[in-house]
Amino acid sequence: MKLTPSTTSIIKRLLIGRNNRPLLSILSKIEPADLASLFKILNDREKHLFIDALLSIGRLKEVLLTIPDGQLKELIKSIETNQLKKLLQDTSADEAAHFIGLLPPESPKYKELLNTLPENKKRKVLQCFSYPEGSAGRIMQTHVFTLPAHLSAQEGLEELRKKAQKESIYYIYCTNNQGQLIGVISLRQLATAPPDTTLESIAKKEVISVSPTDPADEVASLVAHYDFIALPVVDENKKLLGIVTVDDVVDIIQEQVTANIYAQAGLQEDDRVYTPPLKSIKNRLPWMFLNLLLAALASSVLSLFEDTMQELILLAVTKNIVAGISGNTAIQSLTVVTRGLATEDFNFITKTKAILKEMIVGISLGFFVGLGGAALIYLWKGNTLVSVVIFISMLLNSIVASGFGSMVPLVLKKLNFDPATGSGVLVTTATDIFSFFSFLGIATLGLKWIH
Amino acid sequence: MKLTPSTTSIIKRLLIGRNNRPLLSILSKIEPADLASLFKILNDREKHLFIDALLSIGRLKEVLLTIPDGQLKELIKSIETNQLKKLLQDTSADEAAHFIGLLPPESPKYKELLNTLPENKKRKVLQCFSYPEGSAGRIMQTHVFTLPAHLSAQEGLEELRKKAQKESIYYIYCTNNQGQLIGVISLRQLATAPPDTTLESIAKKEVISVSPTDPADEVASLVAHYDFIALPVVDENKKLLGIVTVDDVVDIIQEQVTANIYAQAGLQEDDRVYTPPLKSIKNRLPWMFLNLLLAALASSVLSLFEDTMQELILLAVTKNIVAGISGNTAIQSLTVVTRGLATEDFNFITKTKAILKEMIVGISLGFFVGLGGAALIYLWKGNTLVSVVIFISMLLNSIVASGFGSMVPLVLKKLNFDPATGSGVLVTTATDIFSFFSFLGIATLGLKWIH
Repeated sequence: MKLTPSTTSIIKRLLIGRNNRPLLSILSKIEPADLASLFKILNDREKHLFIDALLSIGRLKEVLLTIPDGQLKELIKSIETNQLKKLLQDTSADEAAHFIGLLPPESPKYKELLNTLPENKKRKVLQCFSYPEGSAGRIMQTHVFTLPAHLSAQEGLEELRKKAQKESIYYIYCTNNQGQLIGVISLRQLATAPPDTTLESIAKKEVISVSPTDPADEVASLVAHYDFIALPVVDENKKLLGIVTVDDVVDIIQEQVTANIYAQAGLQEDDRVYTPPLKSIKNRLPWMFLNLLLAALASSVLSLFEDTMQELILLAVTKNIVAGISGNTAIQSLTVVTRGLATEDFNFITKTKAILKEMIVGISLGFFVGLGGAALIYLWKGNTLVSVVIFISMLLNSIVASGFGSMVPLVLKKLNFDPATGSGVLVTTATDIFSFFSFLGIATLGLKWIH
Repeated sequence: MKLTPSTTSIIKRLLIGRNNRPLLSILSKIEPADLASLFKILNDREKHLFIDALLSIGRLKEVLLTIPDGQLKELIKSIETNQLKKLLQDTSADEAAHFIGLLPPESPKYKELLNTLPENKKRKVLQCFSYPEGSAGRIMQTHVFTLPAHLSAQEGLEELRKKAQKESIYYIYCTNNQGQLIGVISLRQLATAPPDTTLESIAKKEVISVSPTDPADEVASLVAHYDFIALPVVDENKKLLGIVTVDDVVDIIQEQVTANIYAQAGLQEDDRVYTPPLKSIKNRLPWMFLNLLLAALASSVLSLFEDTMQELILLAVTKNIVAGISGNTAIQSLTVVTRGLATEDFNFITKTKAILKEMIVGISLGFFVGLGGAALIYLWKGNTLVSVVIFISMLLNSIVASGFGSMVPLVLKKLNFDPATGSGVLVTTATDIFSFFSFLGIATLGLKWIH
C-alpha cells in the first residue's frame, strides 16, 4: 500500500480515535521506509500511540532500521523507556547495540536499557561498543549465514532450507572448524551446483574482507568500488565476525557526502534542519569567528593602500570584482580536484597533469573575463588606468587561484588531512589577500607613473 | 590477488615484453575493479596491449562495466574499432547499448558498431536508445530471471538449477502468461519454502516498480529509500522489461552528489580532472561572465556611496568584513536546507520550523560575531562610529542572510527547480548588495548626524 495524503490522514484519525483493528490492518500493509516518514507529521501524543501500534504488530524494529542514524538519534530520545524495552526484546545483539548506541552513554536510559538485556546479549552489545565509533565493527550484522566447507551442495541447500533465516542472505560464507572464513559462494552458485560437489570446491577462495576497526567510510568505498552487495568482517585470525551490507553502505555514502558538502560551508555533519538551534549556534560560532579574523586580516592588507584608494575611490569600489572572480576560479579548481580525489577520478590522470590542466583553464578564464571586466569598467566610468589594472591583476590572480586551488587539496591529502575540510576558507582567504595586493599594488604603481 | 605497486610494475613489464602466458595468468586473478584502475598508469601503446590481453581472457567486458559512465566515455573513445567489435560479441543487448551509447551518435564508430550487431540484438539496442538519456530504461538490465507463477517451489528451484544464469540473481520475479509482473520472491524464500507450495502463494504481491521513462536519479532515491537491492522496470501494462540493480544505484548516487557539489561552484557535471582543458573552459566561461556581471552590479551599489567612503576611507577597508560574514551565514543556512531536501530530513520537521530555526541561529551568530567585529575594529582603529555601524549592520544582515538563505532553496524546490543549482550565486549576490547598502547606508546617516 502506498502512503498517500489520504492514507496518512486516515492513519492520524485512527490513531487519535484508538481504532485499533483497522489501524493495525493498514499499518501492516505499508513499507517500513514509508511508515518511518510518518513520524514527520505526528505530534508527540500521536507519536506515542503510533509507536505502541507498531510495537503491537511487531514492526517498530524494521521501521526504525530504515531511518539513518543522524535522524534516529533525535527520534530515539523521544521514545519512552518502556517502549524501548519492548523494542529490544525482539532485536538481535547488533540491532540492540545499534539502538542503545544512539543514546548518550551518560543518560539513565542508556544504562537502564543495557541492564534489561539478558546476560548473553548484553555481553555481545558491550563487545560491539568496544569497537571505535564509526568503524566497521559498529555497523556490521553479526548474524551471518555460514556453511561448513566440507558439506556438499545438496547438504548446503538442505541446511539453508532448515534454518529459515530472519535476515536476508547476501552471500553464503564458508568456514572451517575454527570459524575461519575460507571462501564465499553466491546463492545462485549453491542452487545451480551439481548436488554432490563439496562447497569448498565451488567457493571463491580469495575473499576481500575488512577488519572490525576499519573506518566505516573506507568499507563503504570498497563496497562501491567492487560493486559488492556485502563485505565480510574478520578478525586478525581470519575468524568471521559479521558482514557489512550494501543498504548500510548507501546510507554511509549519503552521510559521507553530506559531510563533504558541509565541510565546504564550515558546518558539522550533525548540524541538520532538525538540530536544536542552540546546538547549531555552538557548532557554527567558532567557524564564524575564524571567518571574522580572516576577513579582518584581508582588511588589514587593504589598509596598506588607504592613500591609493583615497586618491582614486573607484579602486575601492571595484576591488571586490577582482577578488570575487579569482575566489571563484580557485573554488572551481578546488572542487574539481577534491571531487576527483573522492571519486577516484585520479585513477585516470596523474596529479601533475591535473594541476597543469586547471592552470591552463584558469589562465584562459582570467584572460577572457579580465578583458570583459576591463571593457565593462571603461564603458561605465571611462577610466583607462583602472581598466588596465583590472585586466592585468585578473590575469595574475587566475594563475595564483587555479594553481593554489588545485594544489591545496592534493597537499592536504598527502598530509593525511581530509581535502574537503577547510580547503575552501584557506584558498579564498589567500586569493582575497593576493587579489587586494595585486590590484591595489599595480594601481599604486600606475598612479605614481602618471604623476 | 591484490593490486600492489609491485604487481602493477610486473604487469607493465609483461605487457611491453609481450609475455602472454604469465601476463594472462596474473590478469585472470585480479578483481575487475582493480584491473580498471590500471588504465590510469598505462600509456597509449600499453593500453592497446592491455585491452588485447583482457579480450583474450574474455574479461574486458566485466572490467569496463565497473567504470562509471563519465570516465568510460573518455576511455571508450580511445579503444580501437576492431577491439570494440570483439567486445560486443560477448555482450548482452543492454550491455551493447551501454557501450555504444557512450559514443557520440554522429561518430562513424557509433554507426559501424551498431551495424555489426546481429539484427535481433540491434533491434533491442535501438529499443534501449528510444528511452530518454538518464532514464531507468537506459540503465536497466533486460536479462532478468523470471519464473511462471503457477510453478511449485520445487519446480522453481529446478528451473533455477537448469538455467545457470550469467547475471547475478537479486530477486526472483514471478510473471503470468502475458509476461506481466505479478509478484516477487527472494532466493531465500524459494529455497526455504515447502517444496509443493505454488510460487504464487509465497510471492509478495505488492511490488514497487518504476517505468522505463522514469529518471534514473529518482529510481536511485527509491532504491536507497526502501533499502532494495534491485527494482523492477515495467511498462504501462505491467509487463516486466528489466531491473535496475543496487550497484548501478551506488554509481548514480555518487554522480548525483557530484552534480550537487559542482552546482554550488558553478561547474557542469562532466567537468572532471580528466576533461580536456578546452571543454572545461567552454563549460566555465559563461558562469564566470555571469559572476562578472553580478560583481559589477554589487560595485554599482558601492558607487552610490563614493562620497561616504571618500570621507571615511576606513569604511571602504572594512566593508568586506560585513559582506563576507553575511555571505557565509547565508551559505550555511542554504547548505543545511538544501541537504535537508536532498536527504529527506524534511520528513522530520516542517518547513516553517526549519526557516525559523535558521533565523534564530543566524541572528544569534550575527549578534556575537557583530560584537566581536565591533571590538576588533575599535581596538585596531579606535573609530567608534565604524564599530557601531559594523555591529548594527551585521545584526541586520544576519536576519536577511539566514532568512533568505533558508527560503531560497525551498522556493526553488516549490517552483520545480533544482535547489542545489544557482542558489549559491543568487543568495551571495543578494547578501553582498544588502550588506553594502546597510553598512554604508547606516554609516552615511551616522556621518550626517555627527556633522
